[in-house]
Amino acid sequence: MALAEEVRGRTVVGIARPRVDSVPKVTGAASYTGDVPIGGLVHGRLVLSPHAHARIDGIDAGPALALPGVVAVLTAGDLGIADGSGRAHEPLARDEVVFAGQPVALVLAESEAVAEDAVEAVVVDYQPLDAVLDLERAVEADAPAARTGSGGDEADVAMHGDAGAVEVLEGAEPASPNVTGEHVRTNGDLAGAFAACAAVVEGRFRTPWVHQSYIEPQSVSAWIDGDGTLVIQAATQGIFYTRQHVAKVLGLPLTGVRVIGATLGGGFGGKIGLFEPLVAAAALRLERPVRVVLTRTEDFAATNPAPGCLIDLKIGASADGELLGLQARILLDEGAFADFSAASFAAGRIGGPYRWAAWEARCLGVRTNRVGSGAYRAPTAPQTAFALESLVDELAERLGLDPVELRIRNAAEEGDQRLDGVPWPGLGLREALEAARAHPLWQRRSELPENEGMGLAAGLFPGAKSAAAAVCRLDADGGVTVVTGSVDMSGTDTGLVAIAAEVLGVDHDRVRIVAGDTANAPHAPVSGGSTITYSQGNAVRAAAQDAREQLLRIGGEELEIAVEDLELTDGVIRPLGAPSRGVTVEEIARKVTGFGSPYPPVEGHGRTVPVELAPSAACHLAHVRVDPESGFVRVLGYVSVQDVGRAINPSLCQAQMHGGAAQAIGWALHEQLEHDEDGQLLNGSFVEYAIPASDSVPPIETVIVEVPAPHGPLGAKGIGESAVVPGPAALANAVHDATGSRFRELPITPERVWRALAR
Amino acid sequence: MALAEEVRGRTVVGIARPRVDSVPKVTGAASYTGDVPIGGLVHGRLVLSPHAHARIDGIDAGPALALPGVVAVLTAGDLGIADGSGRAHEPLARDEVVFAGQPVALVLAESEAVAEDAVEAVVVDYQPLDAVLDLERAVEADAPAARTGSGGDEADVAMHGDAGAVEVLEGAEPASPNVTGEHVRTNGDLAGAFAACAAVVEGRFRTPWVHQSYIEPQSVSAWIDGDGTLVIQAATQGIFYTRQHVAKVLGLPLTGVRVIGATLGGGFGGKIGLFEPLVAAAALRLERPVRVVLTRTEDFAATNPAPGCLIDLKIGASADGELLGLQARILLDEGAFADFSAASFAAGRIGGPYRWAAWEARCLGVRTNRVGSGAYRAPTAPQTAFALESLVDELAERLGLDPVELRIRNAAEEGDQRLDGVPWPGLGLREALEAARAHPLWQRRSELPENEGMGLAAGLFPGAKSAAAAVCRLDADGGVTVVTGSVDMSGTDTGLVAIAAEVLGVDHDRVRIVAGDTANAPHAPVSGGSTITYSQGNAVRAAAQDAREQLLRIGGEELEIAVEDLELTDGVIRPLGAPSRGVTVEEIARKVTGFGSPYPPVEGHGRTVPVELAPSAACHLAHVRVDPESGFVRVLGYVSVQDVGRAINPSLCQAQMHGGAAQAIGWALHEQLEHDEDGQLLNGSFVEYAIPASDSVPPIETVIVEVPAPHGPLGAKGIGESAVVPGPAALANAVHDATGSRFRELPITPERVWRALAR
Repeated sequence: MALAEEVRGRTVVGIARPRVDSVPKVTGAASYTGDVPIGGLVHGRLVLSPHAHARIDGIDAGPALALPGVVAVLTAGDLGIADGSGRAHEPLARDEVVFAGQPVALVLAESEAVAEDAVEAVVVDYQPLDAVLDLERAVEADAPAARTGSGGDEADVAMHGDAGAVEVLEGAEPASPNVTGEHVRTNGDLAGAFAACAAVVEGRFRTPWVHQSYIEPQSVSAWIDGDGTLVIQAATQGIFYTRQHVAKVLGLPLTGVRVIGATLGGGFGGKIGLFEPLVAAAALRLERPVRVVLTRTEDFAATNPAPGCLIDLKIGASADGELLGLQARILLDEGAFADFSAASFAAGRIGGPYRWAAWEARCLGVRTNRVGSGAYRAPTAPQTAFALESLVDELAERLGLDPVELRIRNAAEEGDQRLDGVPWPGLGLREALEAARAHPLWQRRSELPENEGMGLAAGLFPGAKSAAAAVCRLDADGGVTVVTGSVDMSGTDTGLVAIAAEVLGVDHDRVRIVAGDTANAPHAPVSGGSTITYSQGNAVRAAAQDAREQLLRIGGEELEIAVEDLELTDGVIRPLGAPSRGVTVEEIARKVTGFGSPYPPVEGHGRTVPVELAPSAACHLAHVRVDPESGFVRVLGYVSVQDVGRAINPSLCQAQMHGGAAQAIGWALHEQLEHDEDGQLLNGSFVEYAIPASDSVPPIETVIVEVPAPHGPLGAKGIGESAVVPGPAALANAVHDATGSRFRELPITPERVWRALAR
Repeated sequence: MALAEEVRGRTVVGIARPRVDSVPKVTGAASYTGDVPIGGLVHGRLVLSPHAHARIDGIDAGPALALPGVVAVLTAGDLGIADGSGRAHEPLARDEVVFAGQPVALVLAESEAVAEDAVEAVVVDYQPLDAVLDLERAVEADAPAARTGSGGDEADVAMHGDAGAVEVLEGAEPASPNVTGEHVRTNGDLAGAFAACAAVVEGRFRTPWVHQSYIEPQSVSAWIDGDGTLVIQAATQGIFYTRQHVAKVLGLPLTGVRVIGATLGGGFGGKIGLFEPLVAAAALRLERPVRVVLTRTEDFAATNPAPGCLIDLKIGASADGELLGLQARILLDEGAFADFSAASFAAGRIGGPYRWAAWEARCLGVRTNRVGSGAYRAPTAPQTAFALESLVDELAERLGLDPVELRIRNAAEEGDQRLDGVPWPGLGLREALEAARAHPLWQRRSELPENEGMGLAAGLFPGAKSAAAAVCRLDADGGVTVVTGSVDMSGTDTGLVAIAAEVLGVDHDRVRIVAGDTANAPHAPVSGGSTITYSQGNAVRAAAQDAREQLLRIGGEELEIAVEDLELTDGVIRPLGAPSRGVTVEEIARKVTGFGSPYPPVEGHGRTVPVELAPSAACHLAHVRVDPESGFVRVLGYVSVQDVGRAINPSLCQAQMHGGAAQAIGWALHEQLEHDEDGQLLNGSFVEYAIPASDSVPPIETVIVEVPAPHGPLGAKGIGESAVVPGPAALANAVHDATGSRFRELPITPERVWRALAR
């Protein structure tokens, strides 16, 4: 691919523009799953278990069914879902509930209010069982089993780039019934490596359960079409994945299911097929349209947040700062369901973006009676980076080395091995670190007043490379329609528009993008793994290139000039160097869409799969002030430096970096799902669960670094996940800088700071 | 294109199969526009003018608006439709009504029943004007003008193949205010040609207004989407055409309109954008979803049936049967609106499929105060063929020649000129005539008892060649989805499935077809002009070929064998001659749709425009018995012979031939829209308007002739329209054979036969 050729015009890429979905979203016009009017709709509301672990001895739906307007009360046996491994096979608990908040019945009524009332009237006879909630207790040999029956685990979502290369080693017979698997990455002579170190640091790190906190709760509608097709409209990150998933769980042919993506009100990894099987089963059972929109409290209690971690990490380096040895043991609290394979990720991510001489990383997936775990933006990377980057900082201190210099010295180069043995592609880590080091905030770090501190950390997420296709269609008015099957998440559609406009040489506002559904859209990956701009963007680039070539061929025929002697810029095809002659894209559009067209329609089709990953390296600087009286940490300044490959639309890059930084502040200082000793969620609302609000997020400065991805669309990389990774570590390092104390548990609450200062 | 290569497997094409839409349609599950549940829907009902021509002095909606449940009463000024030429700009009459049945107001209410009641309460103050209803009167210089104001004609639908080549000559200043245009085709020395003839025959032929009689009445829904897009779901034959049409009329950008095709309950040319602008304007005005489903009576009164004709025709031939001269003057009653350019068609079609030495064909489009005219299966061809084939029969009689022989002798060969000067492509006319001649029914025609007769006629419709695109996508289950933007009319989807299956080498039932909408579908032509199988089919063939090549490339990589050494049959890619090794399409499908696919998705994309037309020639044989007492004509036998190029699915060909024959029986013996002297429709229901029922249609025998189209998909031609063309003439010739009387006016009613016999 000739980059120079493609960016010739450079009329679109690199220019900051608002998102194509800004106006409908800002004005409230955007239509989410819950907004779509559906004739004859039945509303569903979940009956949730109050017990973390119990046997269900019976469910009496009679009193609920007696209420006027109640259509049905469904329990597991009514769903027609085959036994099978994984949460999808158990959208309603069968005989055993394994977390407090687990759905045990679905009440269906003519209105949401009636359904709500009827939930209270469903009588469930629970027989409480011993619950296991503590992660360390759970791995003990005599721990109670978090699940006594069968079912449970299935890792069938593997959208992230790591997964293909993961080597899952089943360890020796797990000591506890709750260990679901052991994932080991090992290489080299670790004892020898540590022996050669001038300094070795180690620590035990804890990170809490954290919720994705998308603003729109989980929402699914399902109905049966005139031709018998089960149609699902949902807040989902991936329509094709959801189709396959639902068809499999319900035993339907793929052709019998059609999934329509709705406007997505945030996802962050949390909206990948969780409630679709349940709502679909209900619609099939009732033969009426069914919709379930979770309340905020239900969403906190019953979904799939990020797992808690316990990380024991030890690293060492030579006197001149060469990282030699890494040893890690991670307990990953997967909760009651581990459908998402985070444990295998953690064992790889703990190595960070560095080159190591020898390593042994071990991660145990552990079942507890907490809510099932899922993916959240860069799964396990903020947690492992928190541990690793804290210790790297400490190591620099011990060795008397500049912390940036230590990182640069060990930054993985192309061909270096990741912990899983896969070679790293080229990274822009060094460039990001250099840019961070040069930033005035970092340069002035020694001038900070008392109680203030500056922290730095680096990190990345490998991302995914996915097979994708796209269509780029010329319409009758000369506008271009990009058709994809991908879900617009975090502004990806706007980036795809820019790629098409740039390649085609037409104005940005002449390109529109539409998402098809599974019946008619080109194949697309799940919006996850930072893959849309990188993988789907490549398909759009190829489709636009194809359409451009078609336009030039027609231009050549119309102008009777060889295609090589033509250029297409600003919507006009002209002979090179003869700007006065030309045929416009609009003229061609009228011709090819009119009756009696002498040419076929102009429609480019791109089908691609990137040949390698293109991780986006990030480096965050955090400037904090710690109130010694209260322990309260205020973030005064924040710089997010990130290699984006090429900034297709700098506004979108900044938005990702802003959002990542804000979520990092949440990870570092505020967020944790708290369960009491019985497994009851204590903070299931945005009043109690503290996501960063405007008063806790300072203006975030962004520094965009561009180290083009050789195989990315116009050089772009997928940037969404890396944007959060170094943040918690940078903030912890800043708090250490301000206080002299190392914080090894997230979030760094005022109480924890106050206690540390008091010691 | 290597035909031999493509049909190698021959596992699919040529095998009769049921339509893919049979089951939902037969079971009643199919969901038509009127069946779709829409939340918050407002129902519209039309206020129709009782006058054929009047000035509107005022409309008082007050009493209607006072009725509970009435939402609005809209009149022309409320629609926001710009002034402009054509019926689309006048979905409600402005100051002048020009036919009885013309909509003057749209009542919108919470239920259809309320809207119905409210229609009665709308008070319109009409000032009657002189109406002109008689076609011959209308062209007189002192005829009243059918329209006193501006507005009226616009020919912007030109889907049929003729249109591109039509030369419209404005004649000398029209004598009457009602002549909308004069279309002339002339060539050679006509006087000399007639002088050289051994026989010349002539006659004046009349054909009535005939309604398309689709079973589903006109139906349109419109609403505004969350993002502000105007969405139209309609029983329309063309989604892209309708989008452009509505956008233009309402002054919206193309991007602001999305058209979704609904299951089509018959169209036959009558459902091309008639009510979409009105319903769309109402939805925009009310900001609520609006649906209008016509009642049968409204549909008869207010739509766009086939125009009435008066044809003066004279033809002559040499003694050995060479057709030498043709002179025609046609008055085409376009009614109050002539949006569809039938007059230009008629001037060409009158020449039939024959070679002439000299000709002068003239057609005047005439405005009257009847309903606006539209397209109906092979527009103007059954009417002109009725005239021409009656006279060709008479000429054969005069010359003592076999009527089949006369036709074969003059059958146009490739390169012969049509009346418009365009050269004919190769036709299968000779082959169809030979097949008809060989048929036992024809061979036994001399053995018929008294009062029985046998008639034969030939004919064709040139059809259209249209730019089209299609996608052929491999799904996760190994099935193939064909995505088109074309509307399934008369089983076209089933044919497209067969083309894809054949080319791909997979089972017929592994291919499904879905229609996208204008937002996401590949570009497609209107389903009309017999173009779908021919043009859209070519795009599907190309898309399947592309997907096949992709599959073979992947198969080659998987098997490590050169692509040239592979074959794809029965869903398996195998080394040529080594049937034991292989990789299945299903295996490839799993791989390319799974996470971490090493290959791009398998999606073929076809974009084509045929290089020439491929008319399908037809010859019909009709066997009738005439009751001398009552004049009643019973059709005892019917043979439809047609060159289909290649029978993709013989069942579909037969269905077209059956349907065409049945409609031909309607044209010949039963159907006519009758208006009284004030222009009131007298027979606006299926009780009074007689479409052929099962007791008037005999078993129809079909003889499929295959003369492959050089550029058709697998050789296929578009056959829908030709299937009706010769029918009325064949029946008229049969009645002549039975009675000795020539009938020059359709329909040949018992009364007309009785009167002729009585003379």
